Amino acid sequence: MQSETFLISDKVKWKPAGEGMQRMILGYDDRIMMVKMHFDAKAEGSMHTHPHSQCTYIIRGKFVFTIGDETKTVSAGDALYMPPDVLHGVTCIEEGELIDVFSPTREDFLQ
Amino acid sequence: MQSETFLISDKVKWKPAGEGMQRMILGYDDRIMMVKMHFDAKAEGSMHTHPHSQCTYIIRGKFVFTIGDETKTVSAGDALYMPPDVLHGVTCIEEGELIDVFSPTREDFLQ
Repeated sequence: MQSETFLISDKVKWKPAGEGMQRMILGYDDRIMMVKMHFDAKAEGSMHTHPHSQCTYIIRGKFVFTIGDETKTVSAGDALYMPPDVLHGVTCIEEGELIDVFSPTREDFLQ
Repeated sequence: MQSETFLISDKVKWKPAGEGMQRMILGYDDRIMMVKMHFDAKAEGSMHTHPHSQCTYIIRGKFVFTIGDETKTVSAGDALYMPPDVLHGVTCIEEGELIDVFSPTREDFLQ
């Protein structure tokens, strides 16, 4: 299981990912997956857990993230690490984009 | 082995990563590591391989990437996937930044 090597932005498609959110699957194999997310202002990724390790990088916009019992506002250039099985969620304050990367891959995103 | 959960950009330090390149280690655990790279124009990441799977996202700037036998120019919003043990390298054409993510983690970057 492997994506293409070059993922040129105008050729990769956005897919719906919940109210006010879109997802673009970038590179992946069985142990890693990179995803770009677009959030409208006020969109919410409600609190959830998954067994994957997750790293996130904020491209633009403003977001309030909760990871475990800590809540902070983050913006362009900030990053987050979400350990496996730790509750986390996000609310978008200003429309924006971020990069989510998971290990192992999010097989549920490929279905 | 685990990074902090919130990596706020003005508190994370750049480290030298070869001529014309700097590295900022963002989130990580044993199976994933996210790194921001800054490239001056003309800086080169020479052709190399590693056993890690790698995903890259171009934040800004212009880069020529070679992965295996394919070479393309990429810029903001484009992404790349480098399979384990496949030769790859990059030349920066216009000063810029990118996000590299590896699985498993790059323990060599933590030493």
